[in-house]
Amino acid sequence: MVLKTGSGARVPPFLVMDVIAAANALAASPGAANHRVIRMEVGQPGSGAPEGVRAAVATAMTGTDSLGYTEAFGLPLLRARIAAHYADWYGLDLPAARIAVVAGASAGFPLAFLAAFDPGDTIALATPCYPPYLNIMVALGLKPILLPATEATGFQPTVAMLEALDPKPAGVLVASPANPTGSMLAPDDLAALARYCHDGGIRLISDEIYHGLTYGKPSASAASFSPSAIVINSFSKYFSMTGWRIGWMVLPEDLMRPVECLTQNMFICAPHVSQIAAIAAFDCHAELSARRDSYARSRALLLDALPSAGFTKLSPADGAFYLYADIAHTGQGSSDFCRALLNELHIAATPGHDFDPARGENFVRFSYCATEADIAEAASRLLDRKLTTG
Amino acid sequence: MVLKTGSGARVPPFLVMDVIAAANALAASPGAANHRVIRMEVGQPGSGAPEGVRAAVATAMTGTDSLGYTEAFGLPLLRARIAAHYADWYGLDLPAARIAVVAGASAGFPLAFLAAFDPGDTIALATPCYPPYLNIMVALGLKPILLPATEATGFQPTVAMLEALDPKPAGVLVASPANPTGSMLAPDDLAALARYCHDGGIRLISDEIYHGLTYGKPSASAASFSPSAIVINSFSKYFSMTGWRIGWMVLPEDLMRPVECLTQNMFICAPHVSQIAAIAAFDCHAELSARRDSYARSRALLLDALPSAGFTKLSPADGAFYLYADIAHTGQGSSDFCRALLNELHIAATPGHDFDPARGENFVRFSYCATEADIAEAASRLLDRKLTTG
Repeated sequence: MVLKTGSGARVPPFLVMDVIAAANALAASPGAANHRVIRMEVGQPGSGAPEGVRAAVATAMTGTDSLGYTEAFGLPLLRARIAAHYADWYGLDLPAARIAVVAGASAGFPLAFLAAFDPGDTIALATPCYPPYLNIMVALGLKPILLPATEATGFQPTVAMLEALDPKPAGVLVASPANPTGSMLAPDDLAALARYCHDGGIRLISDEIYHGLTYGKPSASAASFSPSAIVINSFSKYFSMTGWRIGWMVLPEDLMRPVECLTQNMFICAPHVSQIAAIAAFDCHAELSARRDSYARSRALLLDALPSAGFTKLSPADGAFYLYADIAHTGQGSSDFCRALLNELHIAATPGHDFDPARGENFVRFSYCATEADIAEAASRLLDRKLTTG
Repeated sequence: MVLKTGSGARVPPFLVMDVIAAANALAASPGAANHRVIRMEVGQPGSGAPEGVRAAVATAMTGTDSLGYTEAFGLPLLRARIAAHYADWYGLDLPAARIAVVAGASAGFPLAFLAAFDPGDTIALATPCYPPYLNIMVALGLKPILLPATEATGFQPTVAMLEALDPKPAGVLVASPANPTGSMLAPDDLAALARYCHDGGIRLISDEIYHGLTYGKPSASAASFSPSAIVINSFSKYFSMTGWRIGWMVLPEDLMRPVECLTQNMFICAPHVSQIAAIAAFDCHAELSARRDSYARSRALLLDALPSAGFTKLSPADGAFYLYADIAHTGQGSSDFCRALLNELHIAATPGHDFDPARGENFVRFSYCATEADIAEAASRLLDRKLTTG
């Protein structure tokens, strides 16, 4: 008997995860010593959690706390630390009650989508974008409206793009700094989008996961501009704790209890050990700023090397740790290009069509959060050797 | 501007989480020293992860692994250990490829539901049951079909109950041992349900989270009886690692890739540190069996004390660590009863209507996985004092 599968079974992969698996396989293959793989495919710092986090977790392992379930929205101390973070970084006075600790930003999206929207609702967002936005929406029966963004608007959506939509969407999702382009919304532009959405009854979801990783331009939180916006953030990027699966949401008042109920049912709570780790992370700013400075150096190196290697059209890269490169000049599609890059230069990178179904075939994303030595080695490989297929 | 909320915003709470919050508040209140709260509301071992797990995590904190993202389905070593566990406990030869490590059983349910069903599909399950089953289904637009179960069928569904459904459901969910009753399906009965579902094109989901916590009766896995069933399990109960949010699924071949894609998008992966903890848990059977023996003693104590305290109608309690008690004789509804129990005897327990919307008002769930000293103290309070409202 062949059983039916659901519409969720037709959700496409988050392609970078498959690239990671391929790079892992290559790195583990016989003769791997001869072809050390430089990992520029994955959006995670090579360095892992800061020392203070590891020490706090090691201490918790010898303590008496049984590390059981926490309340659904997390340990009160962690929620208070996150609220204080908004005072520190944004001059914003947020009650801890509006902070929901969640199992990574990944958990925040389904919670936000389920609480704010009904199946069939439309959500507008600029492309290129983080692929799971679209895939989670589709899995939950929501309809993404793609706004193809270009360099002209810094790869970001604008109020004009939203005004042109008829009918109006139920929601808008923005990300600044954005993955894969590193582009940012200026605070005034984010404020304008937030006002437009709030006044028009459109739910704004602001993905602020790359805050703290910016290279000169100011960043602002949608929580400063809108009482109805949902903010999603994480300890994975600036705080360098990807594998810990810990993040948070700033919730509007009307969604606090609904998201709490959804969290109780769908997650129970975020991992307790990761919550302890996250509390400690707020005491590690010295180490974390040093890492950001390291990314800044890797970014500068690539912004110099990539054009010399033929990649002359690069995204703004104002924040995060990504460069989105136009590869049209290679005459190759992005999957073929990335496969050749991995097999010949042993550099893993992510094909653009993961981020932009329509136009990504001409782009590739390079992540520069590996060690500086690795990024320098990658630049050297790109400069020294040509891809046979390039 | 008042913004709309989605249908997910109307999902009811997982009530026990609110009871936990109330018990926490009482325990933290002035004068708390005078009224130590005995925690019988929550389904988590009081003792936390075994020593070997804590030691392994402490060691990992001083190691060189950055503990970043794992592949979506988890560390290969953990998947191999879980597959070996099926050989050890069930004599079942499962390829590790069918094992998906997930962020707790909680993550398994939405993944299973989205991969196997479409919005509007019906899923049959016996009540009383674990409340998030229903709440997650509702959040995802699925329609639960409740099969009111009684002592006559051991609070479990039967093939006859399924045969009586017209039209047939798209799915069936079983749990053995079950929460809140502790009742179990005999292996032959599970096999019959599995065959009926597979032959009829009905997707069976088997929640086996309480396996390992049984007190005499044999337990079997649906994976032994059906190639199309989805098995969900966790390190939270027998392995005593609730707060670590780590569990697994055994997937049928046809859902392996769909669930992998959903996991990549919705979770990325389970917490890396919890995966390391889980690997170590398989070396802790001596400590874990000793805990099960302790639950068995607490169970025996309560099966003796509760009838003496007036609770003469108790569920089978063949497994898990719950007793589901009929409180009709008190003349109180379960919420009022539990409130009085907490405020007067300082015993936290969970109202039955969390588990059975229609009939739960006459029941309360006592969890007996706290320490033996706490369970003895609770029994003593119940025997010594009458509730003013009882």
